[in-house]
Amino acid sequence: MLRYTTAGESHGPAIYTLLEGLPAGLSVNAESIARALARRRGGYGRSSRQGFETDAIEISTGLKGGTTLGSPLLIRIANQDNSLETKPPVHTPRPGHADLAGMMKYDTDDAGRILERASARETAARVAAGAVAAQLLHEFDIELFGHVVRIGSVAAKAGDVDDPQKIRDASPFYCLDPNADQAMRSAVDEAKERGDTLGGVVVVESSFLPPGLGSPATWYERLEGRLAQAICSIQAVKGVAFGAGFALGATPGSEAHDEIGYASGAFARATNRAGGIEGGMTNGEPLFLQATMKPLATLRKPLQTVDVKTKQPADAARPRSDVCAVPALSVIAEAVVAFEIARAMC
Amino acid sequence: MLRYTTAGESHGPAIYTLLEGLPAGLSVNAESIARALARRRGGYGRSSRQGFETDAIEISTGLKGGTTLGSPLLIRIANQDNSLETKPPVHTPRPGHADLAGMMKYDTDDAGRILERASARETAARVAAGAVAAQLLHEFDIELFGHVVRIGSVAAKAGDVDDPQKIRDASPFYCLDPNADQAMRSAVDEAKERGDTLGGVVVVESSFLPPGLGSPATWYERLEGRLAQAICSIQAVKGVAFGAGFALGATPGSEAHDEIGYASGAFARATNRAGGIEGGMTNGEPLFLQATMKPLATLRKPLQTVDVKTKQPADAARPRSDVCAVPALSVIAEAVVAFEIARAMC
Amino acid sequence: MLRYTTAGESHGPAIYTLLEGLPAGLSVNAESIARALARRRGGYGRSSRQGFETDAIEISTGLKGGTTLGSPLLIRIANQDNSLETKPPVHTPRPGHADLAGMMKYDTDDAGRILERASARETAARVAAGAVAAQLLHEFDIELFGHVVRIGSVAAKAGDVDDPQKIRDASPFYCLDPNADQAMRSAVDEAKERGDTLGGVVVVESSFLPPGLGSPATWYERLEGRLAQAICSIQAVKGVAFGAGFALGATPGSEAHDEIGYASGAFARATNRAGGIEGGMTNGEPLFLQATMKPLATLRKPLQTVDVKTKQPADAARPRSDVCAVPALSVIAEAVVAFEIARAMC
Amino acid sequence: MLRYTTAGESHGPAIYTLLEGLPAGLSVNAESIARALARRRGGYGRSSRQGFETDAIEISTGLKGGTTLGSPLLIRIANQDNSLETKPPVHTPRPGHADLAGMMKYDTDDAGRILERASARETAARVAAGAVAAQLLHEFDIELFGHVVRIGSVAAKAGDVDDPQKIRDASPFYCLDPNADQAMRSAVDEAKERGDTLGGVVVVESSFLPPGLGSPATWYERLEGRLAQAICSIQAVKGVAFGAGFALGATPGSEAHDEIGYASGAFARATNRAGGIEGGMTNGEPLFLQATMKPLATLRKPLQTVDVKTKQPADAARPRSDVCAVPALSVIAEAVVAFEIARAMC
Repeated sequence: MLRYTTAGESHGPAIYTLLEGLPAGLSVNAESIARALARRRGGYGRSSRQGFETDAIEISTGLKGGTTLGSPLLIRIANQDNSLETKPPVHTPRPGHADLAGMMKYDTDDAGRILERASARETAARVAAGAVAAQLLHEFDIELFGHVVRIGSVAAKAGDVDDPQKIRDASPFYCLDPNADQAMRSAVDEAKERGDTLGGVVVVESSFLPPGLGSPATWYERLEGRLAQAICSIQAVKGVAFGAGFALGATPGSEAHDEIGYASGAFARATNRAGGIEGGMTNGEPLFLQATMKPLATLRKPLQTVDVKTKQPADAARPRSDVCAVPALSVIAEAVVAFEIARAMC
Repeated sequence: MLRYTTAGESHGPAIYTLLEGLPAGLSVNAESIARALARRRGGYGRSSRQGFETDAIEISTGLKGGTTLGSPLLIRIANQDNSLETKPPVHTPRPGHADLAGMMKYDTDDAGRILERASARETAARVAAGAVAAQLLHEFDIELFGHVVRIGSVAAKAGDVDDPQKIRDASPFYCLDPNADQAMRSAVDEAKERGDTLGGVVVVESSFLPPGLGSPATWYERLEGRLAQAICSIQAVKGVAFGAGFALGATPGSEAHDEIGYASGAFARATNRAGGIEGGMTNGEPLFLQATMKPLATLRKPLQTVDVKTKQPADAARPRSDVCAVPALSVIAEAVVAFEIARAMC
Repeated sequence: MLRYTTAGESHGPAIYTLLEGLPAGLSVNAESIARALARRRGGYGRSSRQGFETDAIEISTGLKGGTTLGSPLLIRIANQDNSLETKPPVHTPRPGHADLAGMMKYDTDDAGRILERASARETAARVAAGAVAAQLLHEFDIELFGHVVRIGSVAAKAGDVDDPQKIRDASPFYCLDPNADQAMRSAVDEAKERGDTLGGVVVVESSFLPPGLGSPATWYERLEGRLAQAICSIQAVKGVAFGAGFALGATPGSEAHDEIGYASGAFARATNRAGGIEGGMTNGEPLFLQATMKPLATLRKPLQTVDVKTKQPADAARPRSDVCAVPALSVIAEAVVAFEIARAMC
Repeated sequence: MLRYTTAGESHGPAIYTLLEGLPAGLSVNAESIARALARRRGGYGRSSRQGFETDAIEISTGLKGGTTLGSPLLIRIANQDNSLETKPPVHTPRPGHADLAGMMKYDTDDAGRILERASARETAARVAAGAVAAQLLHEFDIELFGHVVRIGSVAAKAGDVDDPQKIRDASPFYCLDPNADQAMRSAVDEAKERGDTLGGVVVVESSFLPPGLGSPATWYERLEGRLAQAICSIQAVKGVAFGAGFALGATPGSEAHDEIGYASGAFARATNRAGGIEGGMTNGEPLFLQATMKPLATLRKPLQTVDVKTKQPADAARPRSDVCAVPALSVIAEAVVAFEIARAMC
């Protein structure tokens, strides 16, 4: 069974992804992983921290001559800020972050022991896992495609575009609506000015998916459930929706489903409100899901908190951070969806 | 490890839940399970089918003298419509249902082989699992509470109420806003008149949850991910959101998090936009999540589909069905959340 | 992933097997399950209890028209002695049984709460799971074959026989050495006379197995490990060995391995000391493993124990039991091996 | 849930162990891991290869200030012979090794792609996992103790000794019978002279174990099954037995169980034929199990095989190897048992 685990602390020497259950003989290309990691680092609104995260990667195990041996694949992604053992303790938990919940869970007054795994650095390891899965999916002509549709109050206009990958990759916000880019940029600049942060919404969709991935037979194999876990386990994600999503709750059945036709030897649908999933399975239509990200919890103009040692009011800790990481989320979400689709195929 | 599996076909003699990993010595009360199942059957908008589903339950294994032995607990819920072996084949897959996807997955031209597990009848088995989990949680003074906040285009007004359980249980829509009930009833009646169906939105919240359930350390133990899988694996659910949910994507960080105070010997928050989860863990605040349900896929005025044998246009199959099952979803969602919380505690 | 769980108490109304992950479209024949259960009940040395265990089985879920739907298969095996709720408590734990360990684990002074799952009745549910797996394996011309090679001090002579199934099925001890049957019978009769019990050794072997089942790549997929867990989780089994087994520890390498030849277009071996498994994988040779069973823990002439309430010496409890259940073990072991081989193929 | 995975190839730069599910706050001492690895490398009969395997270890993730963070722990063990990418292909599979089975499984004519994971080097990663588990068990005064009781035809005499750890650690064969050491040395020297190899038998026992670890309630949690998988998944192990083991098959029930007494406020047994496990649970008595190891498959005087490219008879490949690795097995078996006991406690 295909499975991945991540390891490593945000300020340790490196983070890692371990993939188990890959087939033998698959070409795995380190450059593809590096490209995905570079996309994750990019996007307008990142701090200077992202600049020096060059994400030097090493595929430490599982390959010989560039192809998988059928053994576990370990990927190492170096951290540049290796200061885990020298960081002073942090007593002022940030609202919106794992800090306080983790301090209670692990009975420690140092938020530094919590944030190492909870911080977004861990998502680089997930992008690496997804990049390997994408190479497997590529053998079957399956491509996942993530992009941004909202930054704070600025929504992109939906609509088909001619060469989506080209447009997305040219956009500082990984967005398919060139007209939104400028407004998004202003929103981020203004938030930065205020010492504030912004969230947003991303989409992951597929070119093509074979029907029947997932299962209606057991609750834990239903595909929307698997994808929802993958997406909502990403740091700062607070919601996921498939196809027309929350709007379906307000739409009558006569306008909410995708009628079935038949043309050119295949079943065909004029709409895709289901987002390519019916009954916990892919139905042969393109996948379409959205995920929403709350704004980052580390603000330059700090939120109010309590010093856990003195119990006195305090400013929340504010390590160097970004204003907006929604473009990165589009890459991470694409990765975890790729992994789940590959898992469903194995 | 706490785990449950469901079995049984919609038109077979019975459906089943098997729970593994329960502690020994827990009192399990069949009446609690029966009450939860009765709540699932209720709500305005159900077909006559619900009337004769009396859900006679039997706890077949795992108990002696009313307490658990530490062995697997098997719960049997009788079906009344036991016609599995005599149903004629169905060649007209319903848009929005598992029918067509399943026929392609399993290479059959009889949708009847698919719908048996994909239909909503299976959710009775999940409610039974959740009812047992609720009895475990009750030992720790944890109660989950599900209710309806939207039926089609009619949204309930939010707001604290005095005795929410009493209000909900008196509402034909399991809704906390008595003023919405009449509009919801009209919406359902009009949909019924048209041969249409309606979806909606439900909320699950908790009285109290201990902090630290879930984990930031491994992606598959993060609590939002686990809950999202549980919720999005329910039939017809197309989205889930935690706390302020999708609105958080449009809210700046300065207004999106829950500042931390300290009062009466405990950390305290004036807001709960996080829905009680930060960093993949409970943070000691009440849980709050929403799930959206698409309208039922079986319409009395049928959608257009294709006969898979003739490839000619056809009306979709229309077995006896409901107009609106959102009240039932509030019960099912409450159940699966209870189960995941219990799992995180075991 | 193929998986099975058993449920049900020894003196409850029934025991159950739940199989998840079966492919759709497999013919499942209740008679095959019944035959395997009848074989389990048989063999010389069983108590009168076995006589009235007619093992009426019902395939409660997962089938339509005799073939699997791809959904979980639940098999119910009725108990005849349904006295769970009326049995008086047992305070005198039997040496060799789960009684005392379980009483300490679950903090109870009633061994009756422990033995319900620990007793051998549970193995009927495993035989049912194996019988379904055997039907899957049969599609690939794979047959597992269990037989008895030792009853107490009486060992069968090894050696190829012409029609092993016929000989085994005619033997009261499921043994391939007709000359041993009489000595085995005398051994059992004498043990019965003394109020004693006997253990023994069984073999499971295969006609043919495709190479490559299992994996050298991850420790938990190595086939000997999986089979060893399956075998050593059977009640009263105290050891398992593959191929030449413990004798290999005393044999030099020059005589312990199976040299590789090539004949008629295939690799060929003159010996099979490895028992068909090398490197945690099947190697294309027949599987061969042995398991040893300790004598039953319930003796008519009771062992000495302590009354857990009074702490005074006492005779161990002695519910109706068998003198020797080694023939049954050959059936159970065959079943769990069939299941693991099927699992490795899925 | 406590879990470990190993990664890395025998001739790659390093091998790895990833441990998930460790509690937070546990002191993990790299020296303990190093000591266990040094014990694994030692023992009479190893090749020069062991000499240069210094097993430089690094705990790459999961610790801060010497204690666990609750996040996955990754341990890296450097290989000295880093030649994975330059090794020529191997076409002559060794009888007794994974070579031929793996070549068929993965459809390759290069045994070099198989042996990288199948070789014994991987067991260093298991010893590291066990050494961490041992540090957890040490907090509960639980110690596992592995030693050698047979090398080829030379069996050690059983019997209680005064300071077993001192005697074992002074023995070149990790054996508690000083009189056997000389005969074992001669046996190894003679085998080496012949170009042959030797197997043997090891024991793992415990000082003390709390009762109730494991479970009678579900087959996959029964402790003998879990331990048997752990042991039989070790390279070259062909059998495992608990307590009196295979002898129990030949012993009548009146002499095969451990009668229960009561003394000094505790249940007491005069014998321990069950090896500390009854009903799939620890019973409070010391654990005792044996495992048998076949002789190593790489002989200096090579076995006969076939060149898979030419299909002609050939000498089996003979990379540098040991004459006897039974002392190492005693360390590996101790490690995997420690891990399973820790898992059962978590």
